[in-house]
Amino acid sequence: MVLTLNCKIWVENNGQKVFGDGPCEILQRVKHTGSLRMAATEMNMSYSQAWKLIDDLESKLGFTLLYKKAGGHSGGGSVLTEKGEDLAETYTQFRREAQESLEIIFEKHFIHRGEKWTR
Amino acid sequence: MVLTLNCKIWVENNGQKVFGDGPCEILQRVKHTGSLRMAATEMNMSYSQAWKLIDDLESKLGFTLLYKKAGGHSGGGSVLTEKGEDLAETYTQFRREAQESLEIIFEKHFIHRGEKWTR
Repeated sequence: MVLTLNCKIWVENNGQKVFGDGPCEILQRVKHTGSLRMAATEMNMSYSQAWKLIDDLESKLGFTLLYKKAGGHSGGGSVLTEKGEDLAETYTQFRREAQESLEIIFEKHFIHRGEKWTR
Repeated sequence: MVLTLNCKIWVENNGQKVFGDGPCEILQRVKHTGSLRMAATEMNMSYSQAWKLIDDLESKLGFTLLYKKAGGHSGGGSVLTEKGEDLAETYTQFRREAQESLEIIFEKHFIHRGEKWTR
């Protein structure tokens, strides 16, 4: 038996979930594609689901995460606001360090324990 | 807006949850009370629910977590096996260090961010 770690991590305000892995992923994909529609497609969400998620996040957070660029030749797109980009980057770095740290602490305590217990 | 961290952490074997905060709490309470019945009461569980939980854990883990002491004057009770106690202690220490580490990393990245974003 080889034991492994799993976790869910999220950010709250007054006990209410306001941000986490899924929201961060959609913001990062908007940043890289320049389009909420493309970000949604990449995550197997409909465009309307994606807008609902963003609307919901903005209302819980109290600030704007992205704005729509004017149409033009390329048909427009979505760009993260400065705060939206700061939130996505802050969370991404936090999440990466959190995962690394959890795995190190888990290994320290659990290495070879599973094999030992089931021997 | 003051952002806080929340998380759920658990241990898996082959992608299946085999241990976590709830199971650890019941083992620790058995250890301290010497009785699964008292541990269950303290956690607002029925005795049969508690036995079902222990049975289920033992079958997933593949080893015995507790044994029943013979009746006698005190009416018997439950005692953790050596492996059961080792698992509870290992997880408790891991969980405490994990929480401390996550909070330090969260603070490092998010301190004053909530106030700044909603200013």
